Amino acid sequence: MVKKLNPRLQEQLEEQPLDIQGFERPRDLLDAIDEDLAPLLDLTQRPVVSASQFTRAQLLQLARLAARYETQPQMITRPLTGKILVSAFYEPSTRTRLSFESAWHRLGGDIISITDPASTGIAKGESLYDIGEMLNHYGDLVVLRDSDEQAVYEMLESLRIPIVNGGNGTDEHPTQAMADIYTLLKWRPSICVPNYDPAQRIRIGIIGVPGRMRTIRSLLVLLSLFSEAIAEVVIVSEQKQPFAVGQHEELVAAGLTVTVTSDLSGALPELDVIYINTIAWIGDDYEELGRRYRLDSSSRLKPDAIVLHPLARGRELPRELDETAHNWYFAQARGAVFMRMALLSSIMKTFA
Amino acid sequence: MVKKLNPRLQEQLEEQPLDIQGFERPRDLLDAIDEDLAPLLDLTQRPVVSASQFTRAQLLQLARLAARYETQPQMITRPLTGKILVSAFYEPSTRTRLSFESAWHRLGGDIISITDPASTGIAKGESLYDIGEMLNHYGDLVVLRDSDEQAVYEMLESLRIPIVNGGNGTDEHPTQAMADIYTLLKWRPSICVPNYDPAQRIRIGIIGVPGRMRTIRSLLVLLSLFSEAIAEVVIVSEQKQPFAVGQHEELVAAGLTVTVTSDLSGALPELDVIYINTIAWIGDDYEELGRRYRLDSSSRLKPDAIVLHPLARGRELPRELDETAHNWYFAQARGAVFMRMALLSSIMKTFA
Amino acid sequence: MVKKLNPRLQEQLEEQPLDIQGFERPRDLLDAIDEDLAPLLDLTQRPVVSASQFTRAQLLQLARLAARYETQPQMITRPLTGKILVSAFYEPSTRTRLSFESAWHRLGGDIISITDPASTGIAKGESLYDIGEMLNHYGDLVVLRDSDEQAVYEMLESLRIPIVNGGNGTDEHPTQAMADIYTLLKWRPSICVPNYDPAQRIRIGIIGVPGRMRTIRSLLVLLSLFSEAIAEVVIVSEQKQPFAVGQHEELVAAGLTVTVTSDLSGALPELDVIYINTIAWIGDDYEELGRRYRLDSSSRLKPDAIVLHPLARGRELPRELDETAHNWYFAQARGAVFMRMALLSSIMKTFA
Repeated sequence: MVKKLNPRLQEQLEEQPLDIQGFERPRDLLDAIDEDLAPLLDLTQRPVVSASQFTRAQLLQLARLAARYETQPQMITRPLTGKILVSAFYEPSTRTRLSFESAWHRLGGDIISITDPASTGIAKGESLYDIGEMLNHYGDLVVLRDSDEQAVYEMLESLRIPIVNGGNGTDEHPTQAMADIYTLLKWRPSICVPNYDPAQRIRIGIIGVPGRMRTIRSLLVLLSLFSEAIAEVVIVSEQKQPFAVGQHEELVAAGLTVTVTSDLSGALPELDVIYINTIAWIGDDYEELGRRYRLDSSSRLKPDAIVLHPLARGRELPRELDETAHNWYFAQARGAVFMRMALLSSIMKTFA
Repeated sequence: MVKKLNPRLQEQLEEQPLDIQGFERPRDLLDAIDEDLAPLLDLTQRPVVSASQFTRAQLLQLARLAARYETQPQMITRPLTGKILVSAFYEPSTRTRLSFESAWHRLGGDIISITDPASTGIAKGESLYDIGEMLNHYGDLVVLRDSDEQAVYEMLESLRIPIVNGGNGTDEHPTQAMADIYTLLKWRPSICVPNYDPAQRIRIGIIGVPGRMRTIRSLLVLLSLFSEAIAEVVIVSEQKQPFAVGQHEELVAAGLTVTVTSDLSGALPELDVIYINTIAWIGDDYEELGRRYRLDSSSRLKPDAIVLHPLARGRELPRELDETAHNWYFAQARGAVFMRMALLSSIMKTFA
Repeated sequence: MVKKLNPRLQEQLEEQPLDIQGFERPRDLLDAIDEDLAPLLDLTQRPVVSASQFTRAQLLQLARLAARYETQPQMITRPLTGKILVSAFYEPSTRTRLSFESAWHRLGGDIISITDPASTGIAKGESLYDIGEMLNHYGDLVVLRDSDEQAVYEMLESLRIPIVNGGNGTDEHPTQAMADIYTLLKWRPSICVPNYDPAQRIRIGIIGVPGRMRTIRSLLVLLSLFSEAIAEVVIVSEQKQPFAVGQHEELVAAGLTVTVTSDLSGALPELDVIYINTIAWIGDDYEELGRRYRLDSSSRLKPDAIVLHPLARGRELPRELDETAHNWYFAQARGAVFMRMALLSSIMKTFA
């Protein structure tokens, strides 16, 4: 009926697909965690700047709430009706911005946005301090992305409404890391339970540069809250010293075993989770790191290994893995909306 | 009271104007078509890529629904409350984008949007395939405009929510054509009735290049569904061969008589409908075609001929016709919102 | 808990701050003005282009309504549900745009927007006249900012829905001036009462160029409605002749005493209100005027003098005054949303 329509489309619609979007798993996670609202109440009206602000209990309860939203969409009323999100993205973004905006709208709220630096008062030399003061009166919560690491702190000085860091330079991207953790917990809900069986401890490979990639920096901080379930984190990098000053020491102090290798092929057969990302933001621009690393159908993955990718992807992850059981990156993208809904509704105290 | 206010404004507000916005006509159309929801139900959750997807029955029922929205605005509840439109315009647009967004909001839905290619993940090399996968989780329907004809097909491969083609390169612009047909039907509701009187068959002149203008390409496809009411379609063009390969043959096979002339003045006195457009999109840029054609108050129009123009207009259609009964282009712009409301609510199955 | 968090933040949250946001004052204003809806009813469905359209009675009732919204937020229902604002900012703006959009959302309405000239039909040569005709069908009210002074008048010719001037070139910015007046009235509600005590008449200093700054142009027009409470308006400027042709004469005819000085230090000790602004818009660009004028903690301000600034600010107003009782510019920014809510709901006749 439609000209030029890809002939695979109709087939895809008809065959029973693998659950690569993760529709089925959140039910198990919901069962694995007992509800406890107290950790979430501590988030009420709080700014979220760094992954290091969160406790394990908070993450578990946020994941639980996200799983409830994912499995019981009919329970989502519109508790944020009349509340205004200020979506301030001074650095290009589609995925993070749309994910936050979708989450806010799903909860019933309205949005005002700043997407183009050229259209803002900054062109007139206005400081983020002053913009923050203004936003106190114009909105109920701010999500800020800025290529300057200090921007979120500058705005915090004048802001009396909550702010969520949507990525500040090379520093942090805490909500992406929360979505990553949510995916891990859906994949293996037993991670949530105390006294994790040491024989089941997992090896996580991270292809990337922790010292220069904000998504990985935040993820490592959150992984350290689950160190008893993690045998080892293997950083795969061409760089001998891929960490920021003090970063490795902090992770070790938090209980993680973190090693480095430049040999992806050698490491792969031992890994249960592979997180791959080759884009690092440098100010308003980006660079590709580890261009020689690549996962495809010839990679020697463990049969039940899962692949995560924050997306957007380039040539490091061709589509050939999309329709295999290794694909958990689609589930990761899907879960990001529910995890952000959980966070936003906790900050706005509208989850109950 | 207002300084510098155009003195004509007050006059205009006071005099009884011609119904050039088409406020009065949709009632007749509503009476001419019997309600039948079955053709609309076939649109539920379907992608809309090409004008060739539609049947005559679907067009009539969509026009009927549009006329109901136009004449009985009090009947419009907010059935799309909680639903999210992804408004993805990778090519500049105001009219089409605002028309879709207005239609969606009038039905109660929320919107997240991508207006600036530079602000998107495409800057990072992200494919429309991946963006489509992401949008499955972020929205409930996508409207896509892209200067690349294949973009809509690429996104369709991964999309499991409906998409509506808002213009793909020089290929198609089906919803503009639907708005054009809605205007024709309001002007002459008898076109909807079976066994159209052959003596009343109309001549439609189209100033433009069917092979290179997406609005005209889609319109011709839809006109072929009403061929028994159309004596002739006259293409007015400086080009000897204004069609794409196979296009003329397809239209003839569908029952239309399609002729070509370069002589607008000669053709005008025989035309009941004149559709004029001189802008053709070429990638991200455009070219003006047929710059020597122009309609104005000296044009030898039949007294009851109507003029259509998809707008934005240039010098080919000066304002002098705006306040004559020939002006149906304002009614066309007005109707576009209601026709898009009809389409969107059919796809979302919220018309009943 | 948060790394690098400014240590002053926690202190600020804990100490009892000065009411520099103006949370406390609107109650007094509400008490000072008797409710009278008649002046507001005259605004129903009217365009707002110039400050000169308003009567004193209208301003007072708008201020009263703004104060009601500010003091009784729980009384704000969502009367604009289903109504669509067209936010058309052809010139860069954050503060004004977000303020209007916030006001509209707080009243329950939806928004479609044009923020980037490059993304609009103007790129195709479309006139504002035609865009206005289109917007009649797409929205319920337009806010327009354009660097061309005539743009708002051109759109008015075809528009049948109300328009609000959000800044037209160097000409006017009436809603900014209304927010300024609201701030003045909150500061001294007795200005609202007839037979103002001559001994209490105030001196207002305006650092800026009335002939070239739209915010000041509009403000002076509105101040002239309160001339019996104003002893003198002192324009502080390096220019000998800072007025547009006829501007000074009009203000004098309206009852204001307006003088000019280049000596800020000399004038300061006599001023009750100091309005400072150094940015003047020139087409799409801006220039800084009066760069040598500056207010800081060493300025010889009267102890109870207040400072207003339309913001964004540059070096003319360093942060050192932010936490003093002179700071009424934060209250001014806050009040702008409520004053715009009052205006928009009056035009849409939804205030009752």
